[in-house]
Amino acid sequence: MSQSPQKLSITKPTPISGFLEFTPEVQLHFDQLVTKIRALFASYGFESIEPPVVERMAVLAAKGGDVDKELYALTRAAGEPGSQKENEKGFELGLRYDLTVPFARYVAQHFGQLVFPFKRAHVGYCWRGERPQDGRYRQFLQGDVDVVNVDSLPLSFDYEIPLIIDGALEILGVQNYQFRISNRKILSGYLSGLGIENIQAVTRIIDKLDKIGAEGVLKMLCEEAKLSAPIAEKALKLATIKSSDASFVDNVQSLGVQNKQLTIGLEELSYVMTRLVASGGTKFSADLSITRGFDYYTGTVYEVRWNDHPSLGSIAAGGRYEDLASSYINKKIPGVGMSVGISRIFGKLLQVGTISPQKRTVTDALIIWDSDADEDELNAIATKLRKRGLNIEVFYEPDKVAKQLSYANKKGIPFVIFPKYKEFKNMQSGAQAPFDPETFSVH
Amino acid sequence: MSQSPQKLSITKPTPISGFLEFTPEVQLHFDQLVTKIRALFASYGFESIEPPVVERMAVLAAKGGDVDKELYALTRAAGEPGSQKENEKGFELGLRYDLTVPFARYVAQHFGQLVFPFKRAHVGYCWRGERPQDGRYRQFLQGDVDVVNVDSLPLSFDYEIPLIIDGALEILGVQNYQFRISNRKILSGYLSGLGIENIQAVTRIIDKLDKIGAEGVLKMLCEEAKLSAPIAEKALKLATIKSSDASFVDNVQSLGVQNKQLTIGLEELSYVMTRLVASGGTKFSADLSITRGFDYYTGTVYEVRWNDHPSLGSIAAGGRYEDLASSYINKKIPGVGMSVGISRIFGKLLQVGTISPQKRTVTDALIIWDSDADEDELNAIATKLRKRGLNIEVFYEPDKVAKQLSYANKKGIPFVIFPKYKEFKNMQSGAQAPFDPETFSVH
Repeated sequence: MSQSPQKLSITKPTPISGFLEFTPEVQLHFDQLVTKIRALFASYGFESIEPPVVERMAVLAAKGGDVDKELYALTRAAGEPGSQKENEKGFELGLRYDLTVPFARYVAQHFGQLVFPFKRAHVGYCWRGERPQDGRYRQFLQGDVDVVNVDSLPLSFDYEIPLIIDGALEILGVQNYQFRISNRKILSGYLSGLGIENIQAVTRIIDKLDKIGAEGVLKMLCEEAKLSAPIAEKALKLATIKSSDASFVDNVQSLGVQNKQLTIGLEELSYVMTRLVASGGTKFSADLSITRGFDYYTGTVYEVRWNDHPSLGSIAAGGRYEDLASSYINKKIPGVGMSVGISRIFGKLLQVGTISPQKRTVTDALIIWDSDADEDELNAIATKLRKRGLNIEVFYEPDKVAKQLSYANKKGIPFVIFPKYKEFKNMQSGAQAPFDPETFSVH
Repeated sequence: MSQSPQKLSITKPTPISGFLEFTPEVQLHFDQLVTKIRALFASYGFESIEPPVVERMAVLAAKGGDVDKELYALTRAAGEPGSQKENEKGFELGLRYDLTVPFARYVAQHFGQLVFPFKRAHVGYCWRGERPQDGRYRQFLQGDVDVVNVDSLPLSFDYEIPLIIDGALEILGVQNYQFRISNRKILSGYLSGLGIENIQAVTRIIDKLDKIGAEGVLKMLCEEAKLSAPIAEKALKLATIKSSDASFVDNVQSLGVQNKQLTIGLEELSYVMTRLVASGGTKFSADLSITRGFDYYTGTVYEVRWNDHPSLGSIAAGGRYEDLASSYINKKIPGVGMSVGISRIFGKLLQVGTISPQKRTVTDALIIWDSDADEDELNAIATKLRKRGLNIEVFYEPDKVAKQLSYANKKGIPFVIFPKYKEFKNMQSGAQAPFDPETFSVH
């Protein structure tokens, strides 16, 4: 058995690890969900923006932290340093790793053209060159909503944002999830009230509660942050407080720590929880262990865990910040926002097999071509139906009807139309009925 | 006058040359057009796919030609060669420069999961690191439709594809454009019939007709392709034939050249033109000067010029090919497709000022917060309206009504609602009317 030289060069392409790609059926379902999420964001008056997928490396690297290592930089494949210079002079480009960095740059750049409070929605891909693992992709779709304003921003947005994201999670079909909400001022005010000075370090340790447990945190608080055992225990005590309404306030107050920032934080979180409860939402809980790693959050912080899949980490998160674009413009722009990990969630649902596309194809009906039919007439019928909002294919071969029906079956097309007999057929039930292009409907 | 050190570091970000970015108002208009184009593609039964924006460099470079120099390769910013190796072993990634390369790879990779004829739509960004110039962006949105089948594909798709793209151009608001359609078999059969051997070289020279004119082409045909003057003139004669229907056939036949491939090409193009005329389209012309540079086209070829902006080159183009994925799988997969340059067109419309967004914001109505109103009640009204499909904002500050109206005005929100007075106001006409959340409509 010898192979021709031509065949030897044939290699079936394989998936690139960390990059999701769907069959058309799954893509259709995914697109429908994304369309619904975009409409949800718009229903709250959030405007879409679509910055380029690249930013200057200097902009991307400014946030610092772990992300630097994961940045994808662009190079012109065939470009020598000399030839690039002209166009890119010190402005190397990289793929964005989140939607916040482009948002900050966008607000600063278009400041004079925006109306404040500026409510922006952005459903877009991000890229991180990290090692692919459960729920981590190198290209992933995120949905972000943020409201920013000049100087100050009403606290009401601190409950509106999680309500929107709750709607997105519902659209995605996530069940058994929980919003955990806190306010940075509570922990830092409380720690100040306890006389603790190195608040950042202590916060960072308390943030590990989920990972290393109470004992681990206590040990670190004593050994690394050099707290006395009673102070460490009191610090930890706050982080164990949870409630599904504003009742956490009493629990905090019973700890007897007095601090002005703590009081403000309690008022704010209490307000947010009260409104969330009033909205009828059931997935919201105050959880004072939540700190969110990013230093730029200054008030409300959110984290959403999917109880069925804790290994995914948070499937949505965010918070309130004091100043979005301070590195660009001399204006104070506070804001609050959340981000939902659409790829992370959809990828998991796909993996566990709970995705059930309702439609297998965009096509509503296939027009059968009988061998004696006039092609222009078939097209005229198709055009008429398309103008009425239907998705229509013509089977462009006057072939055996069985072959045409088999195509409709394989593709999952719900209806076929026989112009010759002025009839249509429901492919699922097998029922046939008279066809009239003016009234034919797929519902 | 001294500046604080902090202020010195503030630098307003500037646009990255070659990357379009829109204000929210323009983005809204752009998104609406793209949504309509996607719906148009679906109305013909074309399924959307969304391959990752990156492909392996080996896949991208396979097509060869000029594009190589424009490829954007990805590198992990902080990755040393050693650390990359593990994940990327010889599989460097680059950004796609068109939607055809990912399509070919996709079809080969998912071959067993696709239903043929496979009709795919892909509206997606592509990247080319070329020097930015009129109508050329480094990131640009394209809309592609292709039909492929195993072994053979009905010729009917050769007129369906330009009809779809015609619809997309109409949606984009392009006026005064022309489809120029030919068939590769006509020119190559004709040249063979003339006894010319180096058909590729001659085709490439004739392709320059637009740029260098008839005299320039004749000169090159004689000097470079070594044709005799009479043969060169006869070769050129074919390329000057145009018609808005199938009448070009007579003109070709009157040239008296006999060749089997020529005959087939004439039959095919005649069929395509006849159906296009029957469809009622007026922008289609047979133009035998069209060859399309890419060697892989084998039959019908299309090119769309925008008469108002000839410097843009083609705003849509495509053709029929014999084999989409021969480098991957041992199947013959012929197809036909076209690509429309959405960014190229929209960017030009924006530049010449013919874009007129019908809506300035997604928001349908703003709910006014009177200082004595109950916030939860305002939210309940908003929720009720959103459930009815409306996009609603609440002004989250019980501030002066004038300030709230000014926000609605600045943002272009068409209606404001005064729950306290059970009234709503049309911001454009100033008319007020009773408000009922069950019946309120913006139309």
